[in-house]
Amino acid sequence: MAERSRQREPAQPLRVKKQLRLGIGDDAALVMAQSGHELILTIDMSIEDVHFTRRLHPPDAVGHRALARSLSDVAAMGGVPRYALVSLAISRETSRGWVSRFYRGMLALAQRFGVELVGGDTAMVPGKTFIDVLVAGEVPRGKALLRSGARAGDQIFVSDRLGLSALGLRLLQSQRRGPISKAAAREAVRSHLYPEPQCALGRFLSIRGLASALMDLSDGLSTDLSRLCEASGVGAHLWEDKIPCPNLPDPADSLQLALHGGEDYQLLITAPGATGSRRPLKFRGRPLHHIGEIVASKGVKLVMPSGKLHNLEPAGWDHFR
Amino acid sequence: MAERSRQREPAQPLRVKKQLRLGIGDDAALVMAQSGHELILTIDMSIEDVHFTRRLHPPDAVGHRALARSLSDVAAMGGVPRYALVSLAISRETSRGWVSRFYRGMLALAQRFGVELVGGDTAMVPGKTFIDVLVAGEVPRGKALLRSGARAGDQIFVSDRLGLSALGLRLLQSQRRGPISKAAAREAVRSHLYPEPQCALGRFLSIRGLASALMDLSDGLSTDLSRLCEASGVGAHLWEDKIPCPNLPDPADSLQLALHGGEDYQLLITAPGATGSRRPLKFRGRPLHHIGEIVASKGVKLVMPSGKLHNLEPAGWDHFR
Repeated sequence: MAERSRQREPAQPLRVKKQLRLGIGDDAALVMAQSGHELILTIDMSIEDVHFTRRLHPPDAVGHRALARSLSDVAAMGGVPRYALVSLAISRETSRGWVSRFYRGMLALAQRFGVELVGGDTAMVPGKTFIDVLVAGEVPRGKALLRSGARAGDQIFVSDRLGLSALGLRLLQSQRRGPISKAAAREAVRSHLYPEPQCALGRFLSIRGLASALMDLSDGLSTDLSRLCEASGVGAHLWEDKIPCPNLPDPADSLQLALHGGEDYQLLITAPGATGSRRPLKFRGRPLHHIGEIVASKGVKLVMPSGKLHNLEPAGWDHFR
Repeated sequence: MAERSRQREPAQPLRVKKQLRLGIGDDAALVMAQSGHELILTIDMSIEDVHFTRRLHPPDAVGHRALARSLSDVAAMGGVPRYALVSLAISRETSRGWVSRFYRGMLALAQRFGVELVGGDTAMVPGKTFIDVLVAGEVPRGKALLRSGARAGDQIFVSDRLGLSALGLRLLQSQRRGPISKAAAREAVRSHLYPEPQCALGRFLSIRGLASALMDLSDGLSTDLSRLCEASGVGAHLWEDKIPCPNLPDPADSLQLALHGGEDYQLLITAPGATGSRRPLKFRGRPLHHIGEIVASKGVKLVMPSGKLHNLEPAGWDHFR
């Protein structure tokens, strides 16, 4: 499988604060909504010992990941993130250094995506550290991409390799690389600690009207694709040999990571199939990974190279499993 | 002191969902911003054993209070609340019944204020229950009321009696009424458990352009007024005998509750003094409580009936005290 260098959102100059009327310090933040646009609102929690641990996740990565989750939701609507508010309940054991490195990680990502931190709430708590991030974004009216738009015959794409974040977490937990090369291990750990929300791709798909449905892969392909199918009232066939996996000696292990590993924050895209030919979706000159197609019959099936079909049960991350 | 019956926001019919393009279920909520308006964003945490306890606060009151905090922030900008997103990290010991009563309390308040619950995030956690509420509201462009607009000579008003919530909490904690009448005790407990955000008054002040500065009293008059003065670069004189207090046998105790008790969610208003006369601000036919005036010299001072001045130190609720 071709190695794709993971693309990072280009650093943006600090945004001119024209649209921000009032930030941190008053009762609430005051911002201007752009006319002709719809507003995207998304809120995501990051909880110590649920979403991160002190031992495995450096504070700047905790800040990065907490914001990345919400940015990725905006990407998954085809929108542009604009403003963030952060609630931080800090466990009493937390040092000032931890908090300042946490904000440094979050603000570095915010700046790179042109997002202003406009408010929040802070408290000291007896228990675990708790972070909640609201991101407000915008999308031209009628251009938002939903989960519910997939139709039978649509083709399924993902934006990049899957399972890298789960592999990175496994490497952090075991502290041993085994047969994995140093560079591959570093890439996987980086994917886990500093995931890159795919806002530019989401916006491209929305503005060009290329996708019929869009969502981000936060809980793993098997779980998220079944959610997309449910929202759209369709099913899906995934081609087992087309799923872009981490490059491990054991191909079955690689596939499991790609199918069920969460927190990749890549985009899952469906697009109408061109009549007669399957024209691959391209972004920045490179084709996206074309991994299957939407079918009318419910359920997600894995199509083996032999042509045999297996049911694919959702086995990704689910808080209420 | 005249008893004022506490005014409740009139129940609104369930809002026509024209402006809500997409609620819970997709990657994010999608809403329309009204043109010619600015967007107000505010986020507030409610944490078990910090902001509420299982023993004293019924679940519907926890839901009501969690939303009321954010609605009050929108009121304090002179805005109209429109949408809410709720993050709920539920401690594992929590029953389903608790959660459904929690949402019932929150949704009843949301409906009465015409606010749509459009999204959120939920997780099970090992520690304490944690709630975070984002409210998005709107205000006509240029009409938001800030903390920073108070000028020397402005008059200071509060929307209703202060200290009732702190008295209610004390009654809940001690389980004894002592010399307080049954009706007064019930009113205080109700003020604590089901505070009423002053959105209609905030909007009235904003649209009529009556206030120079506005904030809500969440942390107690002494603390919040000193914040308003700091933001405006001014000081304040409060007339000790004009502060609307709970009606307790010990006047010193009443005054302490009114000066330092938090969570009343009444509005603190400054308005330009009419030349020659002090015309009291009125809302719905009744004058607001006129409690003092803004002065040029920094610091908040309590003016005794004798004319003597005492420094008033901020002694309300502060998470980082």
